[in-house]
Formats: sequence, C-alpha cells, structure tokens
Amino acid sequence: MAEQHRLEKFFAPSSVAIIGASTRPGKVGHDILRNMLSSGYEGAIYPVNPHASEILGVKCYQSVLEVEGGIDLAVVVVPAPAVVSVMAECGQKEVEAVVVISAGFKEAGAEGVARERELAAVAKQFGIRVIGPNCLGVLVTSTGLNTTFAAGFPKRGAVSLMSQSGALATAIIDWSIQQGIGYSKFVSFGNGVDVGAVDLLRAWEDDPETEVIVAYVEGLPDGPEFMRVARRVCAKKPVIVMKSGGTEAGARAVSSHTGSLAGSEQAYEAAFLQTGVIRAHSMQDLFDLAIAFAYQGPPQGGRVGIVTNAGGPGIMATDAVEHGGLELASLTSSTVERLRTRLPEAASFYNPVDVLGDAEAERYTFSAETLLQDENVDAVVAVVTPQAMTEPEETAEGLARAASSSEKPVLSCFMGGDAVGAAIDILNSHQVPNYPFPERAVQALSAMVRYRQWLEEPPDEVRRFEADVGAVRAVFERARSEGRVNLGEVEAREVLRGYGIAVPESRVAESAEEAEQQAEEIGFPVVMKIISSDILHKTDIGGVRLGIRDRQGALDAYELMMLRVQRYAPKAVLRGVAVQQMIQGGREVIIGSTRDPQFGPLVMFGLGGIYVEVLEDVSFRVAPFGERHARRMLGEIKSAPLLRGARGEGPCDMDAIVECLLIVSQMVTEFPEIVEMDINPLKALDPGRGVVAVDARITIAEEEAREGADDHALCRLK
Amino acid sequence: MAEQHRLEKFFAPSSVAIIGASTRPGKVGHDILRNMLSSGYEGAIYPVNPHASEILGVKCYQSVLEVEGGIDLAVVVVPAPAVVSVMAECGQKEVEAVVVISAGFKEAGAEGVARERELAAVAKQFGIRVIGPNCLGVLVTSTGLNTTFAAGFPKRGAVSLMSQSGALATAIIDWSIQQGIGYSKFVSFGNGVDVGAVDLLRAWEDDPETEVIVAYVEGLPDGPEFMRVARRVCAKKPVIVMKSGGTEAGARAVSSHTGSLAGSEQAYEAAFLQTGVIRAHSMQDLFDLAIAFAYQGPPQGGRVGIVTNAGGPGIMATDAVEHGGLELASLTSSTVERLRTRLPEAASFYNPVDVLGDAEAERYTFSAETLLQDENVDAVVAVVTPQAMTEPEETAEGLARAASSSEKPVLSCFMGGDAVGAAIDILNSHQVPNYPFPERAVQALSAMVRYRQWLEEPPDEVRRFEADVGAVRAVFERARSEGRVNLGEVEAREVLRGYGIAVPESRVAESAEEAEQQAEEIGFPVVMKIISSDILHKTDIGGVRLGIRDRQGALDAYELMMLRVQRYAPKAVLRGVAVQQMIQGGREVIIGSTRDPQFGPLVMFGLGGIYVEVLEDVSFRVAPFGERHARRMLGEIKSAPLLRGARGEGPCDMDAIVECLLIVSQMVTEFPEIVEMDINPLKALDPGRGVVAVDARITIAEEEAREGADDHALCRLK
Repeated sequence: MAEQHRLEKFFAPSSVAIIGASTRPGKVGHDILRNMLSSGYEGAIYPVNPHASEILGVKCYQSVLEVEGGIDLAVVVVPAPAVVSVMAECGQKEVEAVVVISAGFKEAGAEGVARERELAAVAKQFGIRVIGPNCLGVLVTSTGLNTTFAAGFPKRGAVSLMSQSGALATAIIDWSIQQGIGYSKFVSFGNGVDVGAVDLLRAWEDDPETEVIVAYVEGLPDGPEFMRVARRVCAKKPVIVMKSGGTEAGARAVSSHTGSLAGSEQAYEAAFLQTGVIRAHSMQDLFDLAIAFAYQGPPQGGRVGIVTNAGGPGIMATDAVEHGGLELASLTSSTVERLRTRLPEAASFYNPVDVLGDAEAERYTFSAETLLQDENVDAVVAVVTPQAMTEPEETAEGLARAASSSEKPVLSCFMGGDAVGAAIDILNSHQVPNYPFPERAVQALSAMVRYRQWLEEPPDEVRRFEADVGAVRAVFERARSEGRVNLGEVEAREVLRGYGIAVPESRVAESAEEAEQQAEEIGFPVVMKIISSDILHKTDIGGVRLGIRDRQGALDAYELMMLRVQRYAPKAVLRGVAVQQMIQGGREVIIGSTRDPQFGPLVMFGLGGIYVEVLEDVSFRVAPFGERHARRMLGEIKSAPLLRGARGEGPCDMDAIVECLLIVSQMVTEFPEIVEMDINPLKALDPGRGVVAVDARITIAEEEAREGADDHALCRLK
Repeated sequence: MAEQHRLEKFFAPSSVAIIGASTRPGKVGHDILRNMLSSGYEGAIYPVNPHASEILGVKCYQSVLEVEGGIDLAVVVVPAPAVVSVMAECGQKEVEAVVVISAGFKEAGAEGVARERELAAVAKQFGIRVIGPNCLGVLVTSTGLNTTFAAGFPKRGAVSLMSQSGALATAIIDWSIQQGIGYSKFVSFGNGVDVGAVDLLRAWEDDPETEVIVAYVEGLPDGPEFMRVARRVCAKKPVIVMKSGGTEAGARAVSSHTGSLAGSEQAYEAAFLQTGVIRAHSMQDLFDLAIAFAYQGPPQGGRVGIVTNAGGPGIMATDAVEHGGLELASLTSSTVERLRTRLPEAASFYNPVDVLGDAEAERYTFSAETLLQDENVDAVVAVVTPQAMTEPEETAEGLARAASSSEKPVLSCFMGGDAVGAAIDILNSHQVPNYPFPERAVQALSAMVRYRQWLEEPPDEVRRFEADVGAVRAVFERARSEGRVNLGEVEAREVLRGYGIAVPESRVAESAEEAEQQAEEIGFPVVMKIISSDILHKTDIGGVRLGIRDRQGALDAYELMMLRVQRYAPKAVLRGVAVQQMIQGGREVIIGSTRDPQFGPLVMFGLGGIYVEVLEDVSFRVAPFGERHARRMLGEIKSAPLLRGARGEGPCDMDAIVECLLIVSQMVTEFPEIVEMDINPLKALDPGRGVVAVDARITIAEEEAREGADDHALCRLK
C-alpha cells in the first residue's frame, strides 16, 4: 500500500460503523459498541446487525450500505468466514479504513491463512486500509474513539503505544489505568495484514499528541523499511521497542563463521542501535522507560545527582549509576556550601546528598533544587523512604516544583506502599516519573542519556567507494553458469579486488616449472595452495604449504601436492596450484557478512582464530553503515585492546580495517546475492600499511538477487 | 560474643521496657510504645520516662531499676549521649537484650564513633546483647512484638527479613503491607555494634516459623564466619541476600595480575556461590525471590511448562525460560492427547500451551493440572491476561487448587490492574506467587532451580595435600629477615616445591663455566635468567634467554647478561643466573591468589597472556574450596574450550590444573601471610603429563599472619 495513504481515518474518523454489533452484553460486538458510546466519542456511531433494530439505544442498520451518511471507519466483529463479504460491502460504501477485530485468520491454521489472503485481496481491490485481523484495534484518548472491548479507558497522556498482541494490549490498558499511565493513541494491530509497525511509526511521526512511541512486536517483517523510517522518527521523538520471540533464520545451511554466529537477535540489536530505537528488555522495562521519556526530557549528559533521606537506598542508587554507565556528579564547592547553610551538620553534603531520616519536605526540596542548579549535575534522582518525620505529599509537591523549574530531568523513587501512595499520585500528576526501587529509576535515566547521545551524533554518512561492479558480476555469473554457488579463494579474491581490497599477489601454476618461475617473480617466501572447488579441507590432504623459501621448495611443494591429490582425492577437478605472496606479520582479523531474513545484509567483525571461533567475540551491523558504526565495531569487541596494541605489540592499521568494513558494507548492499562471505584472515598491518585479505570465501544465491531486495538496499544508501 | 548466647530474648521476651517512651505523638519514643500496645503483644510493657507518670494509659517508670519484675528486652530511644548510662542501668537490672533505636553513633562522625565504642564496652561489661544502634529493631508477627516506629504491621508469613538499613526497613514494611507479603520476623540492625547478619542467620537457622531468610546488607564484616554459617543454614532453608554498595579494598597497592582483577564484587560473588546463598541483584529481585521461595518449594529440575491464554506473553515467558538457563518442557504424548480432549482445536497443545483468549476458568485449570501431572514438567508458569471471556478470580482459584495438589511449584503471571486485582489476592492467600510480567516469574523460578541444584550437590570435600610447611615458613622468614616482602622466581619456586607443585629443574650459576656445565646436566634446550630482586623487568635489559640449545649458547648467554647488567643496572645486586629446564609445549594458564578484606584468600584461574590481561577472562573462589569448585573454575571462563582442546589442538591436563588449584587453595589458607601470588605461566601439558609452574611471584605480609585469620582459615578446612 502506498506510503502517501495515511491513516487519519483510523485516528480521527467522523463516523464509525460497528459491523457485528451485538445485543448481548459480554459479546465482543456488544462491548465494543458500549465502549464507543461511553468513552466520549462525539462522531456518528452506526451499529450494523441485520437482526436488531437498535442496540444500547442506538439505531441499528442491516448493512453498511443502508447507512445514509458516509462512514470513515468500520469496525468488523463478525465471525471470520463472513469478514470478506463484509469488507466488500465496505468497499462499495467507500469506507477507507477498517479494523478487523475478528480472529480465525493466519493464527488459526491453513484455512485461516487462506482466509487472510482473501482479506488482503479484497482490501487491495477496494483500496481499503486494514488494521487487524485478530486485534483490539484503536483507542484515542483525546476523542474517546475506542474500538476495543477492553474494560476501562486510560487517561490522556503523551505516549502512543502499538502492540502486536491483543491480549497484551488488554492487560496493558488495565494495568495502565491502575498505574496512572496516560496515552495518546493505542493500537493493537494483531496479524498485521496491512497496517503494521512501520505504518504506525509514520502515522505518529508528526502527530503533535504523541511525544513518545512505544511498541511491542514479535517480529518486523520489513526490516530495511523499518530501519529507514525508525531512523527518521527517532530523530524527532523517542521510540521504545520491546521485541520478543525468536524469529530464527530457520533451517538455513550455514557454512561461514559469520553465518554461524549471526542470529536474528544480533540483527535486531544492530538494527535498533543503528536507528536510535531504545530497546526495552522486558515489559517492566518498557513501561519504566515510557514514563521517563513521557514525563521528562533527556538530560544533557550522564552526571547524576542523588538526594536521599536514607543511606541504604542512596547506596543502591549509586551502585545503579555505576552499573548503568552513568557518573556520580561531582558537586561544585558552591553547591556544597549552599547545602551546608540549610542542612544539619550530620547530613552528607556530597553526592549522594543524604538529608537524613528526619528531613521534612522543605529540607528535601531545597536540596533537590540546589542540585538542579549545579552545573556539574545533568539529572537528579530523588530517593525518599517514609520515616517518622517524612512528609511524603509535601515532599512530592516540592520535588515537582523543583522539577518543573528546571530543564534537567528529575526521576524519583518514593519507596513503600500506602505511606507514599498519595505522594506518588502527586508525582504522577506533575510528570515526575516514580519508581518503587532506585535501580529502576537509574536504569530509565541511563536509557535517556544514551538516547540524548544518539540524538547529538552527526548522521553516519555512508561513503561510496569506486568498484568494478561489472567484473564482480562476471565472477558471479561464471560461477552460476557452472552450477556453483560457493566461490573459492581465487574467485573470492577477484571479487575483493573488484572493490579495491588488497589481496596477496597470486598466480596460478599448472606445472612444477611454472610454480618455480612464478614464485621467483612474486618473491620468496610464498604460499602454495591447490585450487579445486571439490576439495573443501585442503590442509587435511597437504594441499596448503606456507613459507616456501626458494625455487627448490616451490618445485617440491607442487609435486607433493599433485601426488597427494591423486592419492587422497583422485576424482577432484584441479584448476592448478595458486602461488601466492606470503604476508608476514600483521594482526589477523575477520570480516564477514550474512543475510538476515528480516534486515538483510549483516556485517560482522572480530579478531581471527580463537577470538571468533572459541570466544565468539564479534560485533555486528546491518549494512550499509558509515564510518562511525564501523569504528564502533572495532571498539565493541572485548579483544579490542589487541588492535590498539597490547603486551608489547604495536597497534595495527585500524583505519584500514574501518575502510574495509565500509567496502564490505557497500559490496553486500550492492550485491544482495552475496548470501555469506568470510574474509578470514584479513591481515591488518602496521598503521599506514593497510590490510590484506589473505583468504576469503563467498557463497552466492542460486539466482541473481530479486529486484525488491536490491531496491531496498540502494535506496538506503542515499 | 559467644555463639551459645542466643537471641531468644529479642524474639520472645516476656517483658519489654521502652526507655525514652514519650508522651508526645509523632516522637519516636511515643510511636514505638503505641506500636507495642497496638500490635497485640501480650507480655508486660514498661514505659520508662522520668518526666511522666503514665503514657497511653500505661504506668510509666523513672528508670528500669524501678520496675518490680524482670525485664527481658529493653528498647532504648533516649538521645545518643544518654545511651551508655541507660545501658549501665540495664546491666544492673540484668537485662540481657537491648535494642538501641537512637542514632548519633558511628554514622555521625568521630564523636559518634567514640560513643559507639563506649556502647560496645558497656554491653560487653554486662554481657548484654545489643541490636543497633541507629536501627528500627525487631518485629515478630506471631506475638505482636514491635519495637519499630513504622506505621502499620505486616501480616504473618514464612519470611524473616534482616536489613542493615532502617530507612529501607520502614519502606519495606509499608510496601509489604500493600503487596500482602507476610513475615515471621523482621530485624533492622543498623550499625550492628553487636548483633549482625551472622547472628541472625544462626538465630533463624532452626526457627520453625522462618522458612525463608532474606537479608539486605551493605557489607559483611566477618566474611569467613558468614560463609561457615551461611553454608550450614542454606542447607536447611533458602537464604536470599541483596548486597549493595562498594566495600572497596581501598588504596591497597596491587602488584599482581590477580590483585588487579580481584575486587570486592568478585569476592562476594564467589562467597555466595560457594555457600548456596541466593543473590538478589535489586530490591525488586529480592522480593520476587522471597515470595517464590516462601510460597512454593523449589522444583526437581528446570523443565518448565507454560500455560497461557495469549500468544504474546507466552512468547515472553518462553524467551525468559531460555535466558534464565531453564528448559521448555517437552510434553509427553499422553499429555498432548489429554489436552486435545478438552481444549478447542485452535489451541496449542504443545508447550507453551495456549488455551486461547476465550478460555474460562475450567479450561485454564484443566490445562494447568494436566501439565503438572506430566513427568517431563518440573514447574508450571501460568500466564493470564484479562480478555472478554476470562474469569480471573475463578481461574486464580482453580490454579491455586492445582498448585496445592501438586508437589511441583506453580508461579503465576496475571497481567493487568483492577481486572486481576481480586484474582491476585486469591493467589496470594493460596501461596501462589504472582508477578506482573512473565519475565519476573521465570527469573524467580530460575533461582529456585539453581538452589535445588545446590542442595543436591554432595559437600565439596576439601582435600588435604602433603606439604613441607617448615620449608615454606623458612623461605618467608628469610625474606622478611632481609626486609623483603616480594619473593622472586627462585624463592617462589621453593615455596611451590614445598607444596609439591612441579617446577622446572633449575640451578644457579655464578660463572659462565658453571652455566655451561649446569645446562649440560639439565639437558638442552634451557632457559637462563638473571637473579636479582633489584631488577623487576628482566626482559627489558636482556636478562632472560629462552631456547638455549648448546654449551656455546649457555656460555654466550651468561656473558652477555653480565655485560648488560653492568651497562643498564650497575647497582643491582646479583644472585647469579638461573639455568632452567625449558618446558616445551603445553597450554599456559595462570593461577593466582589475593586477599580480600572481607573474605580472606581469593584464588583466581584463567588462561595466560592475553586472556587474563586483555580479556579479563577469569574465575574466582574463596579458599579453601574442594574439587567441585576447582573444576567449575575451569569451566566458567569463556576460553574454557581451549583447555578441552580446540582448533586442532588437543586437550591439556585439566585434572592436574584442578589439583594445582586445590593445592594453592590449601597453601593460601595455611599461610594467610601470602598477600598476593601469581603462578604465571603454569604450563598444563598433555593429559596425564601434569602441570609445571614455569614462573611465579609471591608477596607476603610484613609480619607473620595474625592468629585470628589463621584460626578462621583452619577451622573452615574441617
């Protein structure tokens, strides 16, 4: 469906038909109508039910075609087998937006899958946009629009939430009402036959009533498009996503190191990191982050000031600051002096500021205000335990005043139950996010700090490298024409050379004399390897010789190889022996790529050998990416210090590794048919001396990449 | 204070004096009396206040000495400066147990520290046991004893809780009342001048009213004693500890690799692991675990059955099962058949069992019961979202019935707010722990599984190795007599040899001819190193030569070393040149030890070189430990596959490494004066060929270890 077709009719319809409205309380078709009527919606409401003349005092229609006026939005609650014909009627009536609540589609076996396909077809035929099926639909707090059958209606707020799961959505609504969390818009999109996460991101991107977007998803069918849109939206407002479930790559045969280490988890992690999406790791986390972002702006930096009326929780908050990668602010001397003027002598004037157990509201508030005025403090976490002299409500009010008079975020942790219940309500109503335990407040703050850092980064420009695309395509075509998808060293080297990646000088010898001659020309020492796509483990049969130092050695190596191949692999087709420059020294790294079913080309970096194979110490990004992310990949692995030089060894050419990552990123973007590749090892020489791809293997798809994938990839390069 | 002096008088006093009882509501001394009177305590209560004749209708005394009958427990609420004299009166009155609520002690600067010392002295003088100062004291739900000034009284339950922080304790009481969490006993011990965590563990060890012990601590002053007691108590009932705050080793000079990697965090982690203590990583976690253990018994194994009425939360639970190291149970075919008889066709009969959104209580309960009967299921997690047809209360009741008729634990996740509020109350009253989100239920279950595993392990017997303790002591004494605490390679080797750890054959040469001769005798190749405690980095000045292959090489090496030492370190005192057998091959590992201020000797294991220095891939245990923990240390490091053989290399002698760890564990226990040591590298040869300590350094204390430390260490060996 075209991007320009927006979703206004879902969120601001002037009239709503409820097809399948029921007379019987407890039935979904009844409860939805009741919710629509009781939530304050002021547009026209048309119940549709051929067997009723009126429901809940509202006139009922035989079908949408009977309704006199136009219908902006239809909510369909009829049994699954009737949905398609009802959709057709909506089409005739020129309804542009339909919410299909009914279940019984792709979640319900083969018959359901077929039914869902029909639903998609009829929607396309009439140009109808569909939310659902198997969902709760839409709820808009500002207008009282409510197509759900959930009990209760959440209060108004700045958060818009989308959930793939309808059941979760009912629980969320119920829980949010109890917790006092407000929403702007709420969409449960179920099977997502049409409208999905990406459409909703677009819809809320410039929605002035939506300040924070929160999503629960179990998968993202169009990863590249999600990334494109999310990156843009995240620059405007925070997008918090909880992704659950394993969308595994399935039973794909994996032959490369990269392939064996890259799972869907790595792809999501990289995609969120690259687009600024804030990832929640649990439902708890999702809401903790949602209220933090909805109530307070992200801080300028990570220096946290803590005010507490108790030592223990102050220590917990301090621990959490350290674990969350934040910093305990070092208070200025004037702040300390100022605190001394009003706090008792036994108080702690340094961070965390302990105002003591007997602090009333005034002392507490003064301290919070003072911290907020300190130039070394970026955010304040306020911890309050209910003690004998504590004035929870007044303290909450004072804290709310302090928070509203400062640009800096204030997060609170009023600990306890009934003693702080009223105080928490006050905090909530003044947009101070409260958490029952200090760790959760600090974790939320930590996510805000990371988001702010992301916001302030310049765009990660994707560099464009010259490449001989034609030569590369020719290699792929030749392999395919010979019925091969696995490119060995020689062909892989041609591909890399086409992209300007240095490879060792190499010739193919077809006789011992030629080997001798070529080795001489290349210069000793050389490496010799048999060339045969029939022999996978060349080393095992003596097909690889390193460190050949003279002509005699080259001659011997050639003849031994021929002898052994005849003995151990008599049927193998040989293309000769590669005589290759031997790259001495340098740090062995690996750069690889695989294709993720959701996000497409995923590029991996790690140190060669044990680091990748045993320690799995690697880093991933979705291609294409720019220099900033390439550089971060180098820094993210635990063995990064080895690149910078450690244990008496000097640094290696990290700039050249970064450039090579960028080239690979471009290559796998331009050639989506590259299914897997490993450059292993890539030798990183001394700084300024570059990198050399000593060995590589590439697996391509059996057919040239379909246009779709190619298109996506290229548009993201712009 | 002697262990036999138990704490009954704190928990079951027949009479309580409140010294500092106040007439004025809002004052702590008033609120405590009010709490004592209103909580249902049936013993005698004696308010003490020289300025009042009665308070809250109870006769008031001038001092404890005026009270006619005996006093089992005194609660002291007078200002800090008056506490010591009040204590003396208690002593005269033969009061055996005193809770000091008053603040103003070591938490309040130098004066307070002195005052706390006086308090300790007077307590000792009269043989009084003290809880506090700066605390809330004691609360016992079964008798209504309540020395706290906290508002409200929690309900009765199986959990006994201790908190070092009083403020946290007030918050916990308040919060627990709201959440319906019940307690048996509750102690806030504040500064812990006498009674601390270890005493309370002992007091609750055999308390029939305490089924679960929960502790919040900021430090554990006597680590070894804590370990000894905790190990014993954990075998009887679960002990859950939240440890916050950094009790850092302070500005200790660290010269070894082990020292630089071992922090207090590593020591606590190891101590908890070795004693079966269940560690909570946040307050949230602490309560999540507390209710799980209090309500349900730990499962036989980690195979989890999930019942859900919604797909999304089912996926979340499944994700959490995987992340928590548990296993999704594979249901038997008879379970699947049984489910088919009663569940609709569209349901999922495999784990997670999805009973569909329209499931009423009966369908839900049937499924839970069926899973509990499956021999492949060890525990059930029940997820319920409030949907149109859901019957939350009835479902809760059915689930509670199912749980009570099975030995297997059932944890639930009724999601939502008001819609599930009454259901959660039902679950609580039937001891089914409920969590708002699936992840938290599964995390709690995961801790139960680990505890069960710990329970079932046989004791980790500490093996005893023959050692020439006299020879080792002589080495230490000689070094100390020469004013040295750093033992170099030669002396360290003597120490290791004293414990039967293999070292390379080595001689000291004092002339080139001697070097030649010795090398010949040892057998080539040899290593030669200058011996001088004045030269720290021998390699830098050419003071180490590897791989010397013949007599000429030995001669050359000796003379070159002498030349270079004269040139670069003319003032160094030389003890000659070590001529040493060169150990070829083998895997380099490191075994080290350092002393933690809380727990004493901490032993480290890791792979040598980069793995320790760059990747910090190491594992710790508190010594002494037995073979099981030694073997686990080998398995815990990420590079463990390298020990077992990887990338074409065979395995190394892991049994010998384990034995060496055990010997080091014994050595640092027997010699607490070993402050730090590194055996680096220890070469692990092929299986059956043992290990050789190629190089080592040891730092000893300036004085022979004090008796105390030694005592502790030895008694733990029994």
